[in-house]
Amino acid sequence: MVIGLDASGNFGFWKHIDGYCLRHHLDLTKDPNLKKSQSQLMGDLLSGLIKLSPDSDETLLRQLTQQLRSLITSGRLAPAQRLPSSRDLAQSLSVGRNTVSFAIEQLAAEGYLTTSPGRRAVVSIGASLDARKPQRIKTDQRTVELRVSPWARSLHNASWPPIYRGRPRAFQPGLADEREFPHDIWARCLRRAARSARVRGDSSHNSAALRKALQQHLAEHRGVKATPDQIMIVPSAQAGIALIAKVMIGTGDLAWIESPGYGGAFAALQSAGAIVAGVPLDEFGMALGERKDIPRLIFVTPSHQYPTGRLMPAGRRLELLRFAASVGASIVEDDYDSEFHYEARPVSALQGMGLSTTVLYVGTFSKSMFADIRIGYIIVPERLIEIFELAQRHMGLSAAIPMQDALAEFIRNGMYLAHVRKMTRLYKERRDQLLKALASETGDRLSIEIPAGGMQLLARCGAFARDDQLSARLLEAGVVARPLSSMVFHKTKAQGLFLGFAAWNDVEIERAARILGRIVR
Amino acid sequence: MVIGLDASGNFGFWKHIDGYCLRHHLDLTKDPNLKKSQSQLMGDLLSGLIKLSPDSDETLLRQLTQQLRSLITSGRLAPAQRLPSSRDLAQSLSVGRNTVSFAIEQLAAEGYLTTSPGRRAVVSIGASLDARKPQRIKTDQRTVELRVSPWARSLHNASWPPIYRGRPRAFQPGLADEREFPHDIWARCLRRAARSARVRGDSSHNSAALRKALQQHLAEHRGVKATPDQIMIVPSAQAGIALIAKVMIGTGDLAWIESPGYGGAFAALQSAGAIVAGVPLDEFGMALGERKDIPRLIFVTPSHQYPTGRLMPAGRRLELLRFAASVGASIVEDDYDSEFHYEARPVSALQGMGLSTTVLYVGTFSKSMFADIRIGYIIVPERLIEIFELAQRHMGLSAAIPMQDALAEFIRNGMYLAHVRKMTRLYKERRDQLLKALASETGDRLSIEIPAGGMQLLARCGAFARDDQLSARLLEAGVVARPLSSMVFHKTKAQGLFLGFAAWNDVEIERAARILGRIVR
Repeated sequence: MVIGLDASGNFGFWKHIDGYCLRHHLDLTKDPNLKKSQSQLMGDLLSGLIKLSPDSDETLLRQLTQQLRSLITSGRLAPAQRLPSSRDLAQSLSVGRNTVSFAIEQLAAEGYLTTSPGRRAVVSIGASLDARKPQRIKTDQRTVELRVSPWARSLHNASWPPIYRGRPRAFQPGLADEREFPHDIWARCLRRAARSARVRGDSSHNSAALRKALQQHLAEHRGVKATPDQIMIVPSAQAGIALIAKVMIGTGDLAWIESPGYGGAFAALQSAGAIVAGVPLDEFGMALGERKDIPRLIFVTPSHQYPTGRLMPAGRRLELLRFAASVGASIVEDDYDSEFHYEARPVSALQGMGLSTTVLYVGTFSKSMFADIRIGYIIVPERLIEIFELAQRHMGLSAAIPMQDALAEFIRNGMYLAHVRKMTRLYKERRDQLLKALASETGDRLSIEIPAGGMQLLARCGAFARDDQLSARLLEAGVVARPLSSMVFHKTKAQGLFLGFAAWNDVEIERAARILGRIVR
Repeated sequence: MVIGLDASGNFGFWKHIDGYCLRHHLDLTKDPNLKKSQSQLMGDLLSGLIKLSPDSDETLLRQLTQQLRSLITSGRLAPAQRLPSSRDLAQSLSVGRNTVSFAIEQLAAEGYLTTSPGRRAVVSIGASLDARKPQRIKTDQRTVELRVSPWARSLHNASWPPIYRGRPRAFQPGLADEREFPHDIWARCLRRAARSARVRGDSSHNSAALRKALQQHLAEHRGVKATPDQIMIVPSAQAGIALIAKVMIGTGDLAWIESPGYGGAFAALQSAGAIVAGVPLDEFGMALGERKDIPRLIFVTPSHQYPTGRLMPAGRRLELLRFAASVGASIVEDDYDSEFHYEARPVSALQGMGLSTTVLYVGTFSKSMFADIRIGYIIVPERLIEIFELAQRHMGLSAAIPMQDALAEFIRNGMYLAHVRKMTRLYKERRDQLLKALASETGDRLSIEIPAGGMQLLARCGAFARDDQLSARLLEAGVVARPLSSMVFHKTKAQGLFLGFAAWNDVEIERAARILGRIVR
């Protein structure tokens, strides 16, 4: 039923029939039995349409506001209809007059009602759908789904990122063991940082304290050469790579990436418009002689090649730097889990090798602290600081400042280094544990590249099985093993499984290796 | 000088002359005065090139490793040159033998040296620049600067974002007053969240606890209709808009934005490839009849139009929803400071108005908590959840999980709402304070649109001055007032100043208004 006023000001109501409204004139004011005013009558009529429940979690005010609003938007209270006075409506509904007044005020503020001093509120023109012919807006679900961008559509078919829902499963790569993290100490750092945030700082996206602490740490432990201002703090390494890609790559530019290599970088470069070419590896890393074209940008993981774990030796590093400089290419050095090196001290970064090649360095705390911290960083050449800070703001790539400040303290007071050292010992034991378990459970079915550091290893399969099929069967059995074929960007028949060992203790490694052995054999 | 071995295995040295190396043969082993072995001689020669300082902050091991590495990369230790034994080198340098052994091991791990059991280490082939003809890599700074992407180059000329270095200055818009924030309570939430992080959760970018708390809060206070899964937590509103643009916009798609409007959205849409058209406002908001073309996406700020502060009334809201549905456009509703509404309860969001139009909702905590928190969120339609989660991972747009969990507790325990209510009262007083101060200091030079909520107001200037010139003079005097002309995306002569009042107390507002008055008159 629609309550309303007809063109000549008479009171009446409509009835909905088959979604349309038929208007029934019924001038109630002319009924001799009725002593009530128009306002009172209107209140009575409305009270039949409004159901207030005192037992609800919602306040009476909220219930009344919502129901009035929906009477208006649905067209049951017609445009130009005058409401009862708040006193009359309150009486009809048996609620306080303030409740009604506040509801009317609210709806007036929202534009559903028009009020003027001393007069009853009126339903605003245009505040309802056309009451006589309710518009049925049909949305074809399929059409809307298709109306995302070509880029977004392409994500469905990409092999990156691998999504593992729920809690982490054994051998899931790239995960730190957060059970070993000193959460209490970290919590105190966070608390201190949050409490000292009352002092108004500058409005940079990058905490000066973290920039400074990180610069010192990286200079000492990674051989990085940079001023604090060259460091941009971002939500993750992936965000950092996306930022670099967006700044350095124009549509159609050629980018090289190691193959096999890191799918996240492939995706970020492609998303920025690059044509991405996978360059095969030889035993020293990216084989520069393999391609004759000239890249604009080269993405490498020299500390531990992703996913093979190989270290790029000095000779290839220099060759790469010289090559990039000679063709005017930039190098992106993803130093993703370089904190953990097992045979000697971690190898210094390309970035600090002193040639004038443009090297953009990418790092993250999600491996050395814990995955959920979501802080990564990039180091950019000095003359690109301003443009990267602008780009960072444009893309909204910032991390919580209290988090950054807490991290600065954690590094400064030596806890960070202590934790990295502890985990390096532990992860090395786990690597060895996994090697042993694989040897006894899988025999010679898998050929392992022993990584000199990092958190995962690559176990190559012969031609006996397709790695994606093995991977799917393993996932069903509760073990994550990414297929090598999903990380390859050139034509090859190489098959293998990528296994994370860092986040799993002895028992977990043994158990998962047994499952792996059963399925591989 | 370069120490090396000639082709026939004789010991000798080179001299650098004019950047080139001339080789001087000098077979020291044939000198009858010398009783030393090749290894000892080599050790002596090296000791002349290496300077170890026991007083340095660096360990002797690190000093030795770095200097040996640089002798190799610079070519002074030539490829294939055999090093002295660690015993001989230790003796020549007067350091412990372990120090030398560790340095050699490290350089071998890095690929600068090649070692084999029982033999002295050899400088690796390819580990140095060509010693005889040192390659001088010249980098033209200008060339490198120009080699950023066209997008990056365009950032230099954009009028957004406005960058104010250093501490915030009076009237800087969009800033909450963090001095009024309950930092101690927040710090305790953060600490608890960090301590409970030892329990291994799932690997989502979006904290389930925050999604749920936020969903309930938004349903109750903003009329938003969504399940928790529809909420994506991102580092900032800007990141959220960039994410939406990237998913919803393909190259060449038309997007509409209010004019004047939010420059950050304009930039994000353009960066995703959209052609962005500014649609002028009438008194109710975006004037839909102004353009005849068909947009793919419409960006609006219906709660408080940015920058005018106007509320879009219900009639225009419904008209907008119907229009978008009829042409198949999506609406992006930026609800950026809708928590603060002064005349009545905050107006409900477009998102929850119940029509089947695709509405993507954008919110942020940087206004209602404090700027440095860097947590924003978007709400996407149910059928786009999967694609948005994929896109979020691709772009690396995540916020620290401990931060998200702390925020969930802060909302759940009622502190969030209590803080918003307190600040709403305070900001309303400050708005009135600013209105009063402007009236007395600037007289009728400025015409003010009184905003019904939010944190800033627009003061229009007549034709008496150019707003960008006023703004520049004000900035010199320590007052931030963004010119309206920098926020306009269609042809108009409108001039005005955008003033933030939220972060400034009585004294600060008075002082800044006096400066404003002096410069405007």
